[in-house]
Amino acid sequence: MSAGKRDRFVAVWPRIQAEVLEFLDAHHMPADAKTWFERNLSYNVPGGKLNRGISVVDTVEILRGKPLEGEEYFEVALLGWGVELLQAFFLVSDDLMDSSITRRGQPCWYRVEEPQKVGTIAVNDAFMLEGAIYHLLKRHFRGRAYYVDLLDMFHDMTYFTEFGQLVDLITAPEDSIDLTRFSLLKHRTIVVYKTAYYSFYLPVALAMIYAGVPVPDVMPDHAQTLKFDEATVPAATNGTTPKSPYHVAMDILLPLGEYFQVQDDYLDCFGVNIGKIGTDIVDNKCSWVVCTALKIASPEQLEIIHANYGRKSSEAEAKCKAVFEDLNIRKIYTDYEEDVYKSIGHMIDQVKEETWGDITFRREIFHSFISKIYQRKK
Amino acid sequence: MSAGKRDRFVAVWPRIQAEVLEFLDAHHMPADAKTWFERNLSYNVPGGKLNRGISVVDTVEILRGKPLEGEEYFEVALLGWGVELLQAFFLVSDDLMDSSITRRGQPCWYRVEEPQKVGTIAVNDAFMLEGAIYHLLKRHFRGRAYYVDLLDMFHDMTYFTEFGQLVDLITAPEDSIDLTRFSLLKHRTIVVYKTAYYSFYLPVALAMIYAGVPVPDVMPDHAQTLKFDEATVPAATNGTTPKSPYHVAMDILLPLGEYFQVQDDYLDCFGVNIGKIGTDIVDNKCSWVVCTALKIASPEQLEIIHANYGRKSSEAEAKCKAVFEDLNIRKIYTDYEEDVYKSIGHMIDQVKEETWGDITFRREIFHSFISKIYQRKK
Repeated sequence: MSAGKRDRFVAVWPRIQAEVLEFLDAHHMPADAKTWFERNLSYNVPGGKLNRGISVVDTVEILRGKPLEGEEYFEVALLGWGVELLQAFFLVSDDLMDSSITRRGQPCWYRVEEPQKVGTIAVNDAFMLEGAIYHLLKRHFRGRAYYVDLLDMFHDMTYFTEFGQLVDLITAPEDSIDLTRFSLLKHRTIVVYKTAYYSFYLPVALAMIYAGVPVPDVMPDHAQTLKFDEATVPAATNGTTPKSPYHVAMDILLPLGEYFQVQDDYLDCFGVNIGKIGTDIVDNKCSWVVCTALKIASPEQLEIIHANYGRKSSEAEAKCKAVFEDLNIRKIYTDYEEDVYKSIGHMIDQVKEETWGDITFRREIFHSFISKIYQRKK
Repeated sequence: MSAGKRDRFVAVWPRIQAEVLEFLDAHHMPADAKTWFERNLSYNVPGGKLNRGISVVDTVEILRGKPLEGEEYFEVALLGWGVELLQAFFLVSDDLMDSSITRRGQPCWYRVEEPQKVGTIAVNDAFMLEGAIYHLLKRHFRGRAYYVDLLDMFHDMTYFTEFGQLVDLITAPEDSIDLTRFSLLKHRTIVVYKTAYYSFYLPVALAMIYAGVPVPDVMPDHAQTLKFDEATVPAATNGTTPKSPYHVAMDILLPLGEYFQVQDDYLDCFGVNIGKIGTDIVDNKCSWVVCTALKIASPEQLEIIHANYGRKSSEAEAKCKAVFEDLNIRKIYTDYEEDVYKSIGHMIDQVKEETWGDITFRREIFHSFISKIYQRKK
């Protein structure tokens, strides 16, 4: 991503934050409440990679075939910041639930002690980050025909993410190791619901709604589009009803999001110089690596994995890694990556580049995503 | 409330719960995730007094002037259960943030250990209770003209409640006693935002939207309707623009909600046989009782309050109570109650009973609330 693109996106954040905070003045909220919320927003929203938010802008620009300017840029960026607020809502609460230590190179919000201890107030702070999304949407989009579609989209993606988080939390609690709960199927459920919907589909779908891609009577969801057999990519439907562009986008972006997360899991275990030390094994994570290993391991290898996975010891971690090497997970991953890259590329090639007025549903939307991910090393 | 009315409302809960859970089947969620969510719903939603939810039904029936039947009853009850889901979302998370022990006569959800430990998973469980509201609204009301008004109403009330919770949390943290943060103004901010909006205004406003009371271009909010001076009840506006029924309802229901909470605070300290032991003093709560005392106490009395409020000792508690008795807080409360009862009664008398088609905006909506509250002893 060009630095200019990111800078432009970051440059609108102060206005968005100010709009959110104006509301506290209008409601005569005490000064310390305003200071607190300001800090919550500054600490948790703008410090990430911002890929999700910027994707909304990118997608509208591709649909329009030209750069956004002025107030239109602001409106689209605001939708992008809505996705970033949603992300902040999830991260603040996930960190508390996972007892995480750091996030984006600073202590997790719930662990902040100065100037005032945050602790479990982080739960309400997370709610307020979510609440700010709807406040901003109402302020800017109420009265537009597509306002309700934006609301439904945020609601659905939020709900899906919460389901993914639930499955993750009860499948892989840090203090109760039981690998019989793990499988590639479970892994897919977790990553698609917890990550792919809101990180990949949501930004594109918001951009499509804003730009005016016609919304079908029934928006797609995974229940219809992606089968929970273990095939990497959903079979192309041969039905006679043509798919809406939202269905097409979901068919491509959910496997793409799954691929992204599989890659993340792979790099956590086998990556070098990725800027962080992988902890999935000691943290008992339901990772693609262990799920794949569990599927193909011999009884002896299974015994080693069961005895050592999720244990807080570097010896145990090393024993797991040795089994993963013996099982040649590296090769399985490389093959997977080639397969999924080809399959998704094929799906993108099939996209019909429909036009409505001044917007065109272009394959470039999806190429821009996959080119950022393929053979990523960090 | 008649037992029949409550029973009828409770009788629709299983269908609503089943609809929420159907979604997990449609999405091929793992069986343990469905069991978990089912338990979350059963444990946290239907066990309360249900006054908020039933108020939605009551209000639509008063507006219509006749009982609701069949599918219409179900739809309105579903809005009522939406308010109860919102309440559950707040209570589950508040209990965790406040380190509470019991709720509705059972351990707080986050403290449940069997069959699986809940702990901080309660945070995500709270999110899912909120998420279920929008899932149900979409399922039943998407496509109706007022769908977007329902969404805005839930969003606004949720956001307001979160602000109230924030002010409460930073004003009266259990582990940092500083009574200089307390005042009657702060108390009003907390109770109006944290309780009155969602408990009193929301049920009536939802009923009005459903029944078809015309929605104004700009819905009211407290910033416009209730001044933050310390007057008990907002001054009647003498402007020339007639108020919308939503403004009228808010003008009445927010002071009513404040009165309800003041009464709650009073009963916590001075109530007898209210079925629970008051703990506001030892818990360092920003209660109406202490805020009133701080306003009128002598320097000597202030010293006693500052030295003993919020301390975990029954001697300290007794010293605070003695000062409150010396200050005659009982009499101040009784006078307050008579005043506020009269003022609200006067506002209700002024309500213009407008009619639109088969619905009439009747004073009885408000009488039914105040008669449940006035001189309540528990």
